[in-house]
Amino acid sequence: MDLFDVYPIYNITPIKAKGVYVYDSFNNKYLDLYGGHAVISIGHNNNRYIKSITNQINKIGFYSNAINNPLQKKLANLLGKISNCDNYQLFLCNSGAEAVENALKVASFHTNKAKVIAFKNSFHGRTSAALSVTDNKKIISKLNLQHKVVFLEYNDIKSLEKEFLKNDVCAIIFESIQGVGGLNEPSNNFVIKMNELCKKYKVCLIADEVQSGFSRTGDFFAFQKHLITPDIITMGKGMGNGFPVSGILINKVIKSKHGMLGSTFGGNHLACAASIAVLNEIKNKDLQKKSKILGNYFINEAKKIKEIKKIKGRGLMLGIEFEFEVNSLRKNLIYNYKIFTGGSSNKFLLRLLPPLTVKKTHLDYFFKSLKKAINDIKK
Amino acid sequence: MDLFDVYPIYNITPIKAKGVYVYDSFNNKYLDLYGGHAVISIGHNNNRYIKSITNQINKIGFYSNAINNPLQKKLANLLGKISNCDNYQLFLCNSGAEAVENALKVASFHTNKAKVIAFKNSFHGRTSAALSVTDNKKIISKLNLQHKVVFLEYNDIKSLEKEFLKNDVCAIIFESIQGVGGLNEPSNNFVIKMNELCKKYKVCLIADEVQSGFSRTGDFFAFQKHLITPDIITMGKGMGNGFPVSGILINKVIKSKHGMLGSTFGGNHLACAASIAVLNEIKNKDLQKKSKILGNYFINEAKKIKEIKKIKGRGLMLGIEFEFEVNSLRKNLIYNYKIFTGGSSNKFLLRLLPPLTVKKTHLDYFFKSLKKAINDIKK
Repeated sequence: MDLFDVYPIYNITPIKAKGVYVYDSFNNKYLDLYGGHAVISIGHNNNRYIKSITNQINKIGFYSNAINNPLQKKLANLLGKISNCDNYQLFLCNSGAEAVENALKVASFHTNKAKVIAFKNSFHGRTSAALSVTDNKKIISKLNLQHKVVFLEYNDIKSLEKEFLKNDVCAIIFESIQGVGGLNEPSNNFVIKMNELCKKYKVCLIADEVQSGFSRTGDFFAFQKHLITPDIITMGKGMGNGFPVSGILINKVIKSKHGMLGSTFGGNHLACAASIAVLNEIKNKDLQKKSKILGNYFINEAKKIKEIKKIKGRGLMLGIEFEFEVNSLRKNLIYNYKIFTGGSSNKFLLRLLPPLTVKKTHLDYFFKSLKKAINDIKK
Repeated sequence: MDLFDVYPIYNITPIKAKGVYVYDSFNNKYLDLYGGHAVISIGHNNNRYIKSITNQINKIGFYSNAINNPLQKKLANLLGKISNCDNYQLFLCNSGAEAVENALKVASFHTNKAKVIAFKNSFHGRTSAALSVTDNKKIISKLNLQHKVVFLEYNDIKSLEKEFLKNDVCAIIFESIQGVGGLNEPSNNFVIKMNELCKKYKVCLIADEVQSGFSRTGDFFAFQKHLITPDIITMGKGMGNGFPVSGILINKVIKSKHGMLGSTFGGNHLACAASIAVLNEIKNKDLQKKSKILGNYFINEAKKIKEIKKIKGRGLMLGIEFEFEVNSLRKNLIYNYKIFTGGSSNKFLLRLLPPLTVKKTHLDYFFKSLKKAINDIKK
């Protein structure tokens, strides 16, 4: 049977991985500064993580949510403590898209309204409601285009309030740092004002932290830089270090009801074991602080390279913009310098999302290689 | 941090599981005739399954779909062979809801239409498009109600053709045996006619096999009883024996395009390792044939109990209907006889979805206990 051919693929076949490195079938070693779109948070094949999953699967890997699962509570407590969001409620699901779906659904149930405000250049996932708030018509079928959504520019507070005044908005969903969109950030002033208006007009503020959460940006959640209190926070990617797990945090102002949400796999024992191990590693190795320090180091080093026209992002969610499209540069970096990097919808931007365990020496190696790779292109 | 309280819960805390048994924190042993909604296919904590996951996680658990992953191809080949659907194309995702979302999206891209036909009493998942084709207004928020969907009765071929004549339908989605809906089946005649009309009017026929697939019903897919060729087949639950993995099979008449679908976690190495182990166990232990034999045995034994008014389903996807609501009976079975069973939207129906490794002795124990439990209620 063939695979449905929807992914453009680099002709590399990883068969093992450790820390910040991925190894292919020819035993070539690749420095992974992408983490499969920010998924690898505590490093590939972390020993404690493997042990946690292995221990759990030898006990029980899964049972439905019809019974008590103390691992969910353990995960919730650890997450509340580390994220400083103890005053929220946790719901677990399986992917970033599912997290966004559940966030929007909760907002709609809570407000009994249906319209959503999203932002230009956003990406929130591939299921119907998540796609409807994603600003990329190419990946959206007619079926997914039936939700009422208005796309605004970041920092346009006037248009936002105009929409709120129509009294039909259930939620506004935003990325504190856009992922696929190319690391654009709204201004602090705008985020604070948006938060205020959400409270005033009783609109749910959804912070999409699927990519930026779990300490990637130097804060546990990227929105925390702005000192706001979203109604709902989405999580995914780094949450399981590759294990399919996601979730939402729901402010206590929003009340639950039996049957309101549900997931067969969501919150399974194995997923909890994976995410608990991730949180313990973040805490024990102080990865959040390291993410901030390494991010600053990266930005300083990037400033020294004249071909880099703009540096975007925070912590280890970073982008560097050139005057040329980066597609060949990425290919050159992966095939000739054995470094994984990422692209975005901005074709001039190279995106970097390394494991949070990355070290200065790895970044030094990257910049050394980058200079050579830029020169290769000039030739 | 609290959990968002959306699940009604039995006060039992499973901490280990093996085969058809689940053990709680007091070391009570429960016979699992439910499998966490049909998820446990090859039995809890199957040795070869644990070994496959453990081996894989020590190599590489995850990388994004930007690189070659030979495990996806291995899974596709094995699945094609065992399911007898080698002429399809495989796309992998993480949950049943995501499988349904992708099926509907592919149908909409393929036909460039948006309306969907679904059936009364259906359940297809909890994300927006999946909810829109689910016949349960209680779990659907206003936001999810924006898709154009028409719900028909099974076997009403006239209304179906009337809808097709409007020329705006992209897909019809059906369960060969309803899961949550209570094990209702359309007639063979209707399914064959529906298949013909889909071909005539160029509407995609989606067979939702999330619960009924992977040999549960004695066929690999429940639709195969009807000798039809759906355009898209959804899979989930039993596919990973508890590991969050799902997928769709897409008929070769439908062409793929880069970027059309996508999933960050979908098809990760660990999920493939889990599903490959499941397929090997189904094949090596001949679980499909056993499912059929045990199902027939169950039906014969059930006929001997006069309180059972109707027996529904096939293979090990079964329901028994009583003249009374089964809620207390289920509670009695779980707390006093240590047997997990399931309910459905039909409150008179007890649902049974045991691991496919269940044996006659387990079913004998169930019927012995059921008779006692029924008598307890009469007292």
